Amino acid sequence: MPEYQTLLVEQHDKVAHVLINRPEKVNAMNAAFWDEIVQVFGWVDQTDSVRVVVISGAGKHFSAGIDLAMLAQAAAGMTTDIGRNAERIRRNILRLQASFNAIDQCRKPVIAAVHGYCLGGAIDLISACDMRYSTPDAQFSIKEIDMGMAADVGTLQRLPHLIGDGMMRELAYTGRMVDGHEAARIGLVNRTWDSHAELLEGVLALAAEIASKSPLAIRGTKEMIRYSRDHSVEDGLNYIASWNAAMLQSEDLKLAMTAHMSKKSADFAD
Amino acid sequence: MPEYQTLLVEQHDKVAHVLINRPEKVNAMNAAFWDEIVQVFGWVDQTDSVRVVVISGAGKHFSAGIDLAMLAQAAAGMTTDIGRNAERIRRNILRLQASFNAIDQCRKPVIAAVHGYCLGGAIDLISACDMRYSTPDAQFSIKEIDMGMAADVGTLQRLPHLIGDGMMRELAYTGRMVDGHEAARIGLVNRTWDSHAELLEGVLALAAEIASKSPLAIRGTKEMIRYSRDHSVEDGLNYIASWNAAMLQSEDLKLAMTAHMSKKSADFAD
Amino acid sequence: MPEYQTLLVEQHDKVAHVLINRPEKVNAMNAAFWDEIVQVFGWVDQTDSVRVVVISGAGKHFSAGIDLAMLAQAAAGMTTDIGRNAERIRRNILRLQASFNAIDQCRKPVIAAVHGYCLGGAIDLISACDMRYSTPDAQFSIKEIDMGMAADVGTLQRLPHLIGDGMMRELAYTGRMVDGHEAARIGLVNRTWDSHAELLEGVLALAAEIASKSPLAIRGTKEMIRYSRDHSVEDGLNYIASWNAAMLQSEDLKLAMTAHMSKKSADFAD
Amino acid sequence: MPEYQTLLVEQHDKVAHVLINRPEKVNAMNAAFWDEIVQVFGWVDQTDSVRVVVISGAGKHFSAGIDLAMLAQAAAGMTTDIGRNAERIRRNILRLQASFNAIDQCRKPVIAAVHGYCLGGAIDLISACDMRYSTPDAQFSIKEIDMGMAADVGTLQRLPHLIGDGMMRELAYTGRMVDGHEAARIGLVNRTWDSHAELLEGVLALAAEIASKSPLAIRGTKEMIRYSRDHSVEDGLNYIASWNAAMLQSEDLKLAMTAHMSKKSADFAD
Amino acid sequence: MPEYQTLLVEQHDKVAHVLINRPEKVNAMNAAFWDEIVQVFGWVDQTDSVRVVVISGAGKHFSAGIDLAMLAQAAAGMTTDIGRNAERIRRNILRLQASFNAIDQCRKPVIAAVHGYCLGGAIDLISACDMRYSTPDAQFSIKEIDMGMAADVGTLQRLPHLIGDGMMRELAYTGRMVDGHEAARIGLVNRTWDSHAELLEGVLALAAEIASKSPLAIRGTKEMIRYSRDHSVEDGLNYIASWNAAMLQSEDLKLAMTAHMSKKSADFAD
Amino acid sequence: MPEYQTLLVEQHDKVAHVLINRPEKVNAMNAAFWDEIVQVFGWVDQTDSVRVVVISGAGKHFSAGIDLAMLAQAAAGMTTDIGRNAERIRRNILRLQASFNAIDQCRKPVIAAVHGYCLGGAIDLISACDMRYSTPDAQFSIKEIDMGMAADVGTLQRLPHLIGDGMMRELAYTGRMVDGHEAARIGLVNRTWDSHAELLEGVLALAAEIASKSPLAIRGTKEMIRYSRDHSVEDGLNYIASWNAAMLQSEDLKLAMTAHMSKKSADFAD
Repeated sequence: MPEYQTLLVEQHDKVAHVLINRPEKVNAMNAAFWDEIVQVFGWVDQTDSVRVVVISGAGKHFSAGIDLAMLAQAAAGMTTDIGRNAERIRRNILRLQASFNAIDQCRKPVIAAVHGYCLGGAIDLISACDMRYSTPDAQFSIKEIDMGMAADVGTLQRLPHLIGDGMMRELAYTGRMVDGHEAARIGLVNRTWDSHAELLEGVLALAAEIASKSPLAIRGTKEMIRYSRDHSVEDGLNYIASWNAAMLQSEDLKLAMTAHMSKKSADFAD
Repeated sequence: MPEYQTLLVEQHDKVAHVLINRPEKVNAMNAAFWDEIVQVFGWVDQTDSVRVVVISGAGKHFSAGIDLAMLAQAAAGMTTDIGRNAERIRRNILRLQASFNAIDQCRKPVIAAVHGYCLGGAIDLISACDMRYSTPDAQFSIKEIDMGMAADVGTLQRLPHLIGDGMMRELAYTGRMVDGHEAARIGLVNRTWDSHAELLEGVLALAAEIASKSPLAIRGTKEMIRYSRDHSVEDGLNYIASWNAAMLQSEDLKLAMTAHMSKKSADFAD
Repeated sequence: MPEYQTLLVEQHDKVAHVLINRPEKVNAMNAAFWDEIVQVFGWVDQTDSVRVVVISGAGKHFSAGIDLAMLAQAAAGMTTDIGRNAERIRRNILRLQASFNAIDQCRKPVIAAVHGYCLGGAIDLISACDMRYSTPDAQFSIKEIDMGMAADVGTLQRLPHLIGDGMMRELAYTGRMVDGHEAARIGLVNRTWDSHAELLEGVLALAAEIASKSPLAIRGTKEMIRYSRDHSVEDGLNYIASWNAAMLQSEDLKLAMTAHMSKKSADFAD
Repeated sequence: MPEYQTLLVEQHDKVAHVLINRPEKVNAMNAAFWDEIVQVFGWVDQTDSVRVVVISGAGKHFSAGIDLAMLAQAAAGMTTDIGRNAERIRRNILRLQASFNAIDQCRKPVIAAVHGYCLGGAIDLISACDMRYSTPDAQFSIKEIDMGMAADVGTLQRLPHLIGDGMMRELAYTGRMVDGHEAARIGLVNRTWDSHAELLEGVLALAAEIASKSPLAIRGTKEMIRYSRDHSVEDGLNYIASWNAAMLQSEDLKLAMTAHMSKKSADFAD
Repeated sequence: MPEYQTLLVEQHDKVAHVLINRPEKVNAMNAAFWDEIVQVFGWVDQTDSVRVVVISGAGKHFSAGIDLAMLAQAAAGMTTDIGRNAERIRRNILRLQASFNAIDQCRKPVIAAVHGYCLGGAIDLISACDMRYSTPDAQFSIKEIDMGMAADVGTLQRLPHLIGDGMMRELAYTGRMVDGHEAARIGLVNRTWDSHAELLEGVLALAAEIASKSPLAIRGTKEMIRYSRDHSVEDGLNYIASWNAAMLQSEDLKLAMTAHMSKKSADFAD
Repeated sequence: MPEYQTLLVEQHDKVAHVLINRPEKVNAMNAAFWDEIVQVFGWVDQTDSVRVVVISGAGKHFSAGIDLAMLAQAAAGMTTDIGRNAERIRRNILRLQASFNAIDQCRKPVIAAVHGYCLGGAIDLISACDMRYSTPDAQFSIKEIDMGMAADVGTLQRLPHLIGDGMMRELAYTGRMVDGHEAARIGLVNRTWDSHAELLEGVLALAAEIASKSPLAIRGTKEMIRYSRDHSVEDGLNYIASWNAAMLQSEDLKLAMTAHMSKKSADFAD
């Protein structure tokens, strides 16, 4: 199991559980965090025995978002040439975006389990996950607006696909707190569980169920839904036809069919 | 009225009611079905007296999805050249997709009325319809995942526009059953009626109401909503401007205006 | 404060309140209205002291949509050359669209507060706003279908992003009335307030709150959400990175940071 | 070999040669022609022994474009309702477009060999082919402009990809005649041969060479070039990766490798 | 005839000839010029008797590009808030772009006739025209690179459609001079005439020929080519079908047909 | 200077010269090559003193394309599960594509200097470069077709932007050899030099000239041309406006202006 400064990784059978692990800093995202997110999802992508990832926060909260010390440091490195500053800032933002793109592009489903604060950069993070679940007392806020800036690590691009354009703008312009109940009503999370313990139990059970399906079928499904988000229906239909032209010759299909006929569960290769 | 092996077609005034008619096989979609869907919607497109289509299932269920015998037959036809197999599978998938594209592209609104099982390929079918209504005890499931495959006849492309990206992934990864109440809450159906009889009565009344509107206006509206799904707002605005440049010179506009002024209902030409 | 025939403009601190002001005609949109909408949003865009706009209806209703007298006049101007008529109609539609594009493209948030009737062209108008709120007894209807035409001033392009594809088609095909409660449930409005007075008070307070945020951050956020509506996630991420490369060098960021640290509110330059 | 009223089909080994065969009418495209083009390319698509198609004109010319009698007949069928006329015209245009889409979408390469007149609709036709070759005295003209209309069967969409935007507009606005030499210089044809006989011999030899390659590889290549015309580089790269995932497991690859090593020519299955 | 500070407008029958008229400043583009370009093309769009525009330079050159005094003035207006500067610069660039967008979007063809220098902003200008012609000794250069900046008024977006991606980059990275002969070879101009007088005579004759065609057909053709530049072939085909649904009912078609039959020239209404 | 197994890197002032260095194997691309290409362009991107890259072949040829031993090895690793094979092949292709994407996405211009053979994968490589130059006796061929496969490392996506759709298909379907003269005529290379020595001298001089320009301006120009290849003109204009909002505040602009006024050359910071 890989070890990190800011993340704790556990493996439960086929499910990896990644905890953001700076509870004394409300799991604020520092420079090490952004690098380690890329590393851990690289490890996930290459480790065949991991089929689903759950991400949650250690301690009382999910995460308070980007570590302000990191912003202060970036500010300190500015020069007097505005153009060169701009190029440097742009590359920094692209690097932060790359961390959460690693979640979005991970070939395996990633599920966020949120309790307590989920602020600013943490909204960017969960927007890049496949699904989101929370406790009723979770607190969500697009806090960037109160930093005097537009969110730039994915919230404004991915969240409208979850909650619709109208509510999106209210939350992004005001930064107001949304609790778990409202989050479930507007589609920000799929459902809530009553306590942190029940949330983790529920989400890990869901993850285990997904891990029991054909891994090739899950990957194809994720790739198609991601592709459809950015392409026309016609392009999407064409793409799945080419993809399945090979995948339907896989052993998994035969295994699944046989299991289906015999009412047993199939045991798919990694 | 055309006759089919797997479909039963009734016409109520301006509304065609298409029933999937293999109740003894839970309305499973066999080879004849995929061909006849293309034929019946070709007939709908060319028959001026039909203005709206309702599609439902004969017997106790809407449909259990693709007929497994059809998959078995396809599997039996495989050769030892993987490349040629792939091309053949790809063409088969494109052909199945074409059947439901015929619903999506039909110039007239198509409304699904769902009771009982609506599984696998049946979700692909209703995703291609204009609207969906059900009984509370309807049972929806993206069952392809349990066949060891990614759905490839349109669900993954069209359904996210109905239920949002977050719930989409949960249902596609797990294949879990959704009943009519939840379907209404997440946007999969627009509303429920309490029994199968009330559902059919309600949907046929809705269809009759749509059939009383100007057919040119309905077709233009459907074309624009379909186009907007896959294009930018700006492209969409440009397209409707060109379209209406001719349509606003139609007689229907004058008829509708006159009817509106005199508080009577207009009687539009087919 | 600019003065208009069909609009009344008030300014409350940093918030402009635009009232559609033809109550004796149920605020129907006549030729002057379409011109003045462009003018008032041009004034908003250039007036630094205005940061947020609220739009509502004077009298008992929001608006009954386009003035039928205007359509009659357009009809009277038709010649016998259908091609030239078509070009003229097309340009007229593009001109009407430009009026509501001025709302959509306005650099500052525009919030609709709806009570009473909101019909036909009024739906096109509120679809182009950033957010929508209403009383429970507001009455929404895509009435164009009963005029024998497809809506052509933005409803069919923008509304699906708010209420999903399935409900969109039902409302566009039938033109049925939706009240405020249902509007809130399907995402057409973000919430309701119980009376017209409470609605205005609530929306103006919300507008004032948004006006207290960094105006550069609000503009960037609006631009990004609009851009994301029509582009892929990847394009959107790239765009915000280039945008923020300059914006993160702004004074607003420092002001906001300082305010955040000292728990005071920042006072941003216009 | 199928037989047609307006087309003559010959097969030379793996190459089908389709001649437009109304020489007494300068090969003008009548109603039968537009249907038979769909039929012949349907036959080509399904006939494994045909791997490449050459299309040329019988008699002294390639084709003078659409038969004016057909336009006159369409004009005669007009009613007094402009909206219904518009819908009918639109469907007629879509049907004509479908005829040349059958060429564009044909899975096998289609090569045009042009001598004499190639006017109006004939430019639409050759724009939908894979490659074009001519005699020096061929005469090309986008003649639609002299009919008082914008070309609507594909020229304006496909030709800019061949000759660039600047020359495209000159030819479309003026309808001026371009001979074979200029056509070769601007990219409208790939090269010229000096006489009609040499042209046919040269093009049939080229077609035979393409027919000797792996048919799966040729189809994949055509599909990718067509796709790249309408998509981003990134989408194109993703698509070919999925496509080749199956195709690189084909026998053709092994055959080609073996042939390459032994300096012999491979004999691919149809 | 409208009068301007920096432009001279002549009308020859149906052709407007716009001369950039600051010969003592090598026709450098000052603030007045950018405004007047919008005005003159607004006038062209609304003046039915103008059907084609020719644009050339008064004196010895076409234009040396943007007036450096204008840049100096912009530089002088900078504040110390980089974010607000950025927003101001962005709006200024969008305003300059709007000037040449007015050429690109003008409903009537615009032809550039180039002699002498055509540098920097002048390349942006001619890239937005429909066609370009020059003398052999014309001198073209993407001079922005030597100002330490990327061209931002349209060259980098529109020129690749004319000269291909490979030559585009060489010229944009080096700013090297291209003469008329090379310009014709790479597609930057359609052809050359030997002297300034012959160039103007040739281009005006070409413009007059285009002006004799059906103005509706010319506008439709320009709209379709512009649309196809930014859309897929399929979208383009759909668009022209809707467009022509109305346009083919125009009188121009009948006039053109009759003229064609009788071998006379048609006289189209403006 | 970094050292590699398959590449040789020299630095001439601000220009890096990368030589493919397996002359005894005709510079065939083996596994080490594909990795090292990523490394060398990573080094280029991060090394401020390198502003332009030239890539050429050591010995008598540019490159014969992918090493057949690498394909044989890949073939040997196949399992009996076609679905899992497909996923593995797909990932391998994506990895090969990533190597040449590193060239395409490199922030600094990359120029190919080609002599001798340039076959198969080598065409994919030079298609990803900014510009291409060659000797007259260079030999270009899209050789993949003779391997029984469609090219899958970028040729089919990028080359049509250089040589047009018509010639593209001829070369891709036939794999025929094109020499340097023809390559220059069709736009595959920008020009030729007569000998290998003159080619290198000419290309290095060109590279040095580009290296003397503002590096920020060159990067912005490359980014905009790449972006425009895959986006609409309108999107491209919007993007450059946001980009230059920061870049026009750079020191380089002032330096370039001063140099321009004084007719001296500017000395830009890295």
